[in-house]
Amino acid sequence: MVVTRPDVERAATRIAAHVRRTPVLEDTPDLTLKLELLQHGGSFKARGAFNRILAAGDLPEAGVIAASGGNHGVGVAYAARMLGVRAEIFVPEICAPVKVAGLRALGAHVTQTGAIYAEAYEASAKRAAETGALEIHAYEHADVVAGQGTVGLELLEQTGAFDTILVAVGGGGLVAGITAALDGAAGVVAVEPALIPTLHDALANGGPVQVPVSGVAADALGASRLGRVAYDTVAAAGIRSVLVGEDAIVEARDHLWRTYRIAAEHSGATAMAALRSGAYTPAPGERVVVLVCGANTDPSTLA
Amino acid sequence: MVVTRPDVERAATRIAAHVRRTPVLEDTPDLTLKLELLQHGGSFKARGAFNRILAAGDLPEAGVIAASGGNHGVGVAYAARMLGVRAEIFVPEICAPVKVAGLRALGAHVTQTGAIYAEAYEASAKRAAETGALEIHAYEHADVVAGQGTVGLELLEQTGAFDTILVAVGGGGLVAGITAALDGAAGVVAVEPALIPTLHDALANGGPVQVPVSGVAADALGASRLGRVAYDTVAAAGIRSVLVGEDAIVEARDHLWRTYRIAAEHSGATAMAALRSGAYTPAPGERVVVLVCGANTDPSTLA
Ligand SMILES: Cc1ncc(COP(=O)(O)O)c(C=O)c1O
Ligand SMILES: Cc1ncc(COP(=O)(O)O)c(C=O)c1O
Repeated sequence: MVVTRPDVERAATRIAAHVRRTPVLEDTPDLTLKLELLQHGGSFKARGAFNRILAAGDLPEAGVIAASGGNHGVGVAYAARMLGVRAEIFVPEICAPVKVAGLRALGAHVTQTGAIYAEAYEASAKRAAETGALEIHAYEHADVVAGQGTVGLELLEQTGAFDTILVAVGGGGLVAGITAALDGAAGVVAVEPALIPTLHDALANGGPVQVPVSGVAADALGASRLGRVAYDTVAAAGIRSVLVGEDAIVEARDHLWRTYRIAAEHSGATAMAALRSGAYTPAPGERVVVLVCGANTDPSTLA
Repeated sequence: MVVTRPDVERAATRIAAHVRRTPVLEDTPDLTLKLELLQHGGSFKARGAFNRILAAGDLPEAGVIAASGGNHGVGVAYAARMLGVRAEIFVPEICAPVKVAGLRALGAHVTQTGAIYAEAYEASAKRAAETGALEIHAYEHADVVAGQGTVGLELLEQTGAFDTILVAVGGGGLVAGITAALDGAAGVVAVEPALIPTLHDALANGGPVQVPVSGVAADALGASRLGRVAYDTVAAAGIRSVLVGEDAIVEARDHLWRTYRIAAEHSGATAMAALRSGAYTPAPGERVVVLVCGANTDPSTLA
């Protein structure tokens, strides 16, 4: 299933009243940062969550359900709260207490279960089958992907023409949505931690495959395989993936803080890492946009 | 001496190639944040420094000299470095080692002397008289005030019409420059810590008077009297000042982090404090801009 630009346009209309139009920082004529980390909930995830809920129309009484102690959980909890919808969020037992408290502060009903994410996800799916709640998967749904893509459409309205956008990848919902939104207007370069090459390996294998998950960005980019919707959407568009090392991600996060006073989390700095490390080298005069996509970080680690 | 809009326009032309056009976040139709904390050096101070240096024309061999261990020092050191000019910065002995290291990393020659700022300032003035270096005062010069004002001109280009801008005040260079830039296009409300009421007391007394200095924002807003250029410029325009308490400043800084993932220092959150605390209450439908003017903060205190 391929998400298309009209899908993203419909998503943008649906969610316009609910999401922030996040600012862009035009640093040089050749480098623009899209500051999506300033979105509600500290990442782009609210976009997909709002679109999924609003596109679903009449909701079951049980509301919505999702599995994630990270940004997706926050995005769903925030959107549900703003729309007056009940939300259940399943998180693994290792989820940090501060994240659980954050979800509860947004009014979500939190269930801690399972040693790892996959077990929390299984429990949420079982619960959804019992209650009839609307499942909101983090990336494996066209409405979520189209919602994430609205950040790309917004960018097109905000900036002059550009050549390339660098986007971090986990399950691939974000990069697929942006690919659909741009629809060839600019090139999309996917950036992945070398330790979690979901898209890289999917492209090499002709479809999503299981990958190991580890490293500094694993809390946000740690999907163990690319989504099918994401694969179909980006494969059709001929997107390439570049891999970055752990040190490069850490350096890029530090650079964003020191140079711009932007407090990104590691996943939010991953796209910048491609530029800083030379994993992606723009041609002379190439106008590049770096998507800074998440800020849910412990600020004390920025100092 | 009154700074006028044409002064600010000339400043904008002079410094355009050197400063960032900082982004705006339109949060609601009635509330826009101008993110000047993303400026080079983490505050608006580079604007005034660039304008002062560029307006001076041929520089003495001794370069430029300033007294400040805070944002002004960083702004001057940054501008001097970018323009290939020698910079000496005088800071009091209590200046945090990390700030001294930051100034040195920008290539500045740092002298630590005096128990308090005023003593470091005296020493810098004496040194300037000896070497002939160009003194860059933090606010008591029309070119510095006009440079700071360019943030206001930029804002007018970036946003639709607005009614009111809230601006933090120390020596008054920033608020005076913005008042000149807006030239009546919108109202300017000065916001000051109740513990450092430089403008408030100047307006009450018909001219700058000495005030005590203390509180969480004193490192940046701790001028002990309003500048004369600032006074003349804002008094002519009929600007009002509102005072905010320490708790309100702390709460506003926390709010900027929690709600927007904006890492402001206390002075950078002071304007927002007026809105959050009710020290300034906009009329229904009034479109307000909050200037978030500084990010030079220890991020570990945001958590
Ligand atoms: C900040 C941040 N960036 C990037 C991603 C990756 O998004 P996707 O899984 O849609 O590829 C995530 C996913 O959680 C995220 O939280
Ligand atoms: C972040 C910040 N905000 C506001 C001010 C106040 O500026 P002014 O002294 O021009 O009133 C300063 C001055 O150092 C500052 O650093």
